[in-house]
Amino acid sequence: MPKIIIGVMGASSHATPIEIQTAYALGQEIAKAGWVVLSGGRNLGVMDAVSRGAKQAGGLTIGILPHQNTVMSDAIDIPIITDMGNARNNINVLSSQAVIACGMGVGTASEVALALKANKPVILLTDDAVSQAFFRRWGGAQLSLVQTVEDAMKATRNILKCPI
Amino acid sequence: MPKIIIGVMGASSHATPIEIQTAYALGQEIAKAGWVVLSGGRNLGVMDAVSRGAKQAGGLTIGILPHQNTVMSDAIDIPIITDMGNARNNINVLSSQAVIACGMGVGTASEVALALKANKPVILLTDDAVSQAFFRRWGGAQLSLVQTVEDAMKATRNILKCPI
Amino acid sequence: MPKIIIGVMGASSHATPIEIQTAYALGQEIAKAGWVVLSGGRNLGVMDAVSRGAKQAGGLTIGILPHQNTVMSDAIDIPIITDMGNARNNINVLSSQAVIACGMGVGTASEVALALKANKPVILLTDDAVSQAFFRRWGGAQLSLVQTVEDAMKATRNILKCPI
Amino acid sequence: MPKIIIGVMGASSHATPIEIQTAYALGQEIAKAGWVVLSGGRNLGVMDAVSRGAKQAGGLTIGILPHQNTVMSDAIDIPIITDMGNARNNINVLSSQAVIACGMGVGTASEVALALKANKPVILLTDDAVSQAFFRRWGGAQLSLVQTVEDAMKATRNILKCPI
Repeated sequence: MPKIIIGVMGASSHATPIEIQTAYALGQEIAKAGWVVLSGGRNLGVMDAVSRGAKQAGGLTIGILPHQNTVMSDAIDIPIITDMGNARNNINVLSSQAVIACGMGVGTASEVALALKANKPVILLTDDAVSQAFFRRWGGAQLSLVQTVEDAMKATRNILKCPI
Repeated sequence: MPKIIIGVMGASSHATPIEIQTAYALGQEIAKAGWVVLSGGRNLGVMDAVSRGAKQAGGLTIGILPHQNTVMSDAIDIPIITDMGNARNNINVLSSQAVIACGMGVGTASEVALALKANKPVILLTDDAVSQAFFRRWGGAQLSLVQTVEDAMKATRNILKCPI
Repeated sequence: MPKIIIGVMGASSHATPIEIQTAYALGQEIAKAGWVVLSGGRNLGVMDAVSRGAKQAGGLTIGILPHQNTVMSDAIDIPIITDMGNARNNINVLSSQAVIACGMGVGTASEVALALKANKPVILLTDDAVSQAFFRRWGGAQLSLVQTVEDAMKATRNILKCPI
Repeated sequence: MPKIIIGVMGASSHATPIEIQTAYALGQEIAKAGWVVLSGGRNLGVMDAVSRGAKQAGGLTIGILPHQNTVMSDAIDIPIITDMGNARNNINVLSSQAVIACGMGVGTASEVALALKANKPVILLTDDAVSQAFFRRWGGAQLSLVQTVEDAMKATRNILKCPI
């Protein structure tokens, strides 16, 4: 049986301290649930924080890296080198059983859109009303709007049909 | 000197009659300006309409196709077969000197986001306030908000620093 | 009707003067036949020479470029920016009705292999017995072995079922 | 520290019984060495056999899958869904610290060529003189020619500068 992979996306250079903190906590919870964290793999922002959180809790981390010379987060176990820049965003979402957007950035927006296009379950972990309004149009039951790590985990369990 | 390539993106199956009509007129104008139209190349929605408009006006059309067996618009001169699904959206925007979103769909949203991420000039041709509000955050001077084909063409000329 | 696109591949930095000369002549002949030349688009070796030959004879040229900052051949009309490095080699072959390898390099070898894998007709324009022996195993009727531009054009016409 | 990933490539439908057996043994040895096996991930030929061997010996396996509906080997722990067909071959080699070709097929040939192009160490595990002669031209010290699993493992340890 393949492992359960949860993609976590979010801002890189422009991530806020709260987004970083939330991503770290989310990484811990995903790891505690026994799932693998997948991210864009760079040593920046949400990608780095969610991977560090997962490692702290003993989890496994995959980083889907944009280019060969990309500086990678220290917390990545399995670097996948795509050399295809932001086109890798499609691989990020296709390889995840659920995609959690922790905050919003323009790269994250592309991932959420690609995930919805591919009929992947998406969880928006943000209190930003504009992002919610924008993506709600295409999401339907496929889209969960949450504001806490706890609710993001509940939504993920629900998607995976896990017993609590 | 390479030709000037203008990418036009928009909804496929869910395009409205008005979006189709706008895309057709936009294709005509781009062709009349002597520029090449680039689209996702399928025989659906905005992709098809903008290519048909460009051909009607004697222009050249490029279609960046998702897969080998994709049904192509009859109005494509140069089909580029990527076999990489929606990851091709990144090629669409990188290959365009300007990206015009004619209406909005979830695939279009990914293209606008990837274009802004890559610092490409983007023109949103829509009266949809939510889309405008969502993308305005990352756009700055790189993003033009317009509501008519005429204004989309003016914005494109401005981006390309063309004399009127 | 889409244009007929012929992919021409070959060595970049290590191309020999004869390969450059052959590629230039091949580009001229492809253009005279009314077909479009597709190459890797860089300003080096066979890619550059075949594109220059095609332009000299009034043809149209497509360059499928590896990255955004790649230095492009001056003879490219339609640059397609993939930002996916050598993974673009698969796009090169899928977008061509026939693939002509003009000499052999390690990048060319990947393109010939990807073309044969995708059931594309391949023409090896080389007198190199090792390359011929290596690829003959997978080629069957799909592979033509030729040693002159004239024979490469004959093989291409045959593939396209063109009257002479 | 990221894990050490060894890519193993080889024929799919046309793999011989001996290649299958060799790939299985190779997967076992790579897993015993504590390294991760990366393959194309399908339930066929060398990809499947090397992954099964690795799992039998308690290892971790990555499968870089061509498309969303590809039938996957049962022995893959971490499926990465690229939806980019054979263009994924470039990801296979870039993500591996060393690439071992177990036998030769036309897809394998593309991977060996892409690996040499990217300056990745390549080990040809085959007694096929034509393949050896073909790739030897570009390999130099980067290419090891071996005929047994034992020698493939020695060459890999050498590449990774591991103590025996």
